[in-house]
Amino acid sequence: MLDALPLPHPFESRVGSAVLRRATGDDIDALMALLADDPISAARGDVASDADHDAYARALRDILAEPSNDLLVVDLDGTVVGTLQLTSIPGMARQGARRLLVEAVRVRSSIRSSGIGSAVMRWVSDAAAPALGASLVQLTSDAARTDAHRFYERLGYAGSHVGFKYDVQR
Amino acid sequence: MLDALPLPHPFESRVGSAVLRRATGDDIDALMALLADDPISAARGDVASDADHDAYARALRDILAEPSNDLLVVDLDGTVVGTLQLTSIPGMARQGARRLLVEAVRVRSSIRSSGIGSAVMRWVSDAAAPALGASLVQLTSDAARTDAHRFYERLGYAGSHVGFKYDVQR
Repeated sequence: MLDALPLPHPFESRVGSAVLRRATGDDIDALMALLADDPISAARGDVASDADHDAYARALRDILAEPSNDLLVVDLDGTVVGTLQLTSIPGMARQGARRLLVEAVRVRSSIRSSGIGSAVMRWVSDAAAPALGASLVQLTSDAARTDAHRFYERLGYAGSHVGFKYDVQR
Repeated sequence: MLDALPLPHPFESRVGSAVLRRATGDDIDALMALLADDPISAARGDVASDADHDAYARALRDILAEPSNDLLVVDLDGTVVGTLQLTSIPGMARQGARRLLVEAVRVRSSIRSSGIGSAVMRWVSDAAAPALGASLVQLTSDAARTDAHRFYERLGYAGSHVGFKYDVQR
């Protein structure tokens, strides 16, 4: 976990008072449901299958055990309705700038446009990045997610790069 | 540093025998020159200025001190002609897949097309990723680097994502 993150972070949204907090092992089922709630993730095999429960639980333990990673959830009246992963990465480029990588941002499809995603991403750039000493926030978004691209552009992100992925033969 | 990486890695190229190895503090000047040798990096302020030496040295120490990060150099007869950074990242998506993030790939401009870049990237996908238990390799490349995009596509990378960056106000 990233000890320096200012958590928990309570905030208001159009669907009620919410709290951004660190995930725990009790959130596994909700996290699996959030991933499966997304068609692009589901097409990659994230379908909330009971058979994958242990793999997700192990992944969460790995994330929380690493001092440069954290997994957060948005808690709305006791229900997990969003998640994102943060990774703090030192780097040489840009005069030795530290970067904050954002991965796997998900908000439950039934409450999109509630302001929850914007509030979380503003906390990332305005609170999390400064707390970690990061001068750059970066993320990639599947080319098919055109709504998400407009969302990030409205928040001030520049879609300046092409994101390449390579599936390792196992 | 990433202890599991199979380093050093000797390999042949069209400009001679080379070795991929972990960077040390003695490589700082060469690393600064490599960053400044690239017009896009130079435009972001990586101009090999003596005033930035300490910032780069601190960044290298940070990278080597973190168990999920490593900075590598290509050594050709005692001269550093290339570099890349690797970050191993646990994740929930894709049934809890670990990712290997590649950042800041640079090869000295005078020896492009020597096969050095290809040899290094093949080592990343065929040796480094399996050694770290990563099933996905990912990187972003500035939209202006069209030659680099063809290079990654030839290696089997899919340019399936848009890479977003946000400069944090400091």
